[in-house]
Amino acid sequence: MPLHRGYEGQECSVAGTLALVGERWTLLVIRELMLGVHRFDDLQRDLGIARNILQDRLERLAEAQLISRRTYQPHPPRYEYRLTERGLDLWPVIVALMQWGDRHLSWPDGPPVTLEHRDCGGELDGHLCCERCGARLGPRDVWAQPGAGTAADHPLRRRAARP
Amino acid sequence: MPLHRGYEGQECSVAGTLALVGERWTLLVIRELMLGVHRFDDLQRDLGIARNILQDRLERLAEAQLISRRTYQPHPPRYEYRLTERGLDLWPVIVALMQWGDRHLSWPDGPPVTLEHRDCGGELDGHLCCERCGARLGPRDVWAQPGAGTAADHPLRRRAARP
Repeated sequence: MPLHRGYEGQECSVAGTLALVGERWTLLVIRELMLGVHRFDDLQRDLGIARNILQDRLERLAEAQLISRRTYQPHPPRYEYRLTERGLDLWPVIVALMQWGDRHLSWPDGPPVTLEHRDCGGELDGHLCCERCGARLGPRDVWAQPGAGTAADHPLRRRAARP
Repeated sequence: MPLHRGYEGQECSVAGTLALVGERWTLLVIRELMLGVHRFDDLQRDLGIARNILQDRLERLAEAQLISRRTYQPHPPRYEYRLTERGLDLWPVIVALMQWGDRHLSWPDGPPVTLEHRDCGGELDGHLCCERCGARLGPRDVWAQPGAGTAADHPLRRRAARP
């Protein structure tokens, strides 16, 4: 069964973007990179996906110049992945998906993650502004905090608990 | 080959939202509904997809309460589809995907579609505000205009040319 990734005949920026990042798992890989997870093994563990699928998604993201790869250990070779500026520009996509889910999915103890303005602690609003100070925010202006109801093994809590 | 639509074990609003709308074509169906295309045959023609796939996506969107179905012709039965408020709340996702593509994909004659503030004609900026008057905008405050370089058979131009 061939994978159809693009949308031929669509003269549309939505379709063009989805042709690059609309594959299953791809936007979650980008989410992880935005949360500061950069190494293959960490990505694989957080996402819980097959290594060959993760490898495929990373290769395609690199082809699309959305991420870059860097060796962090030569023997055996181990790589880490970073979003390029072009990749980081997908931040509003991730935020919009997250905010929809925060609002409309059932989270009895509140959303799993909140995005806070680093400078003042205000939450990111639906216009990518700080709800407290009104500043227009970008991906480097916020940090992700685990919500009140997130499990102890949530990736953000695991990372916070690391020595 | 089973379709894997959800992301088990992910305590994440991004993953939860993608479980509902991350399937191939689904976000383009939502784009069409936002552009004012509501009838099955029109959706099918604009998207150029198989009828059974469109049917599947519409059924799943209805199950997720993102769209509602209405009969507009009883014999033979013909249906039109409208976004619910819950579905309309996906507007920032569509806009974010579009704005990324406008910026980063190659559109020699400019982006295919621009979103303009109905009240003053200003363009929608990256914070879902009007770049001219600064108003915070939502899906009912903007209209979509075909860009300078869009082909004559672009759906927006076809609709504008209709008697």
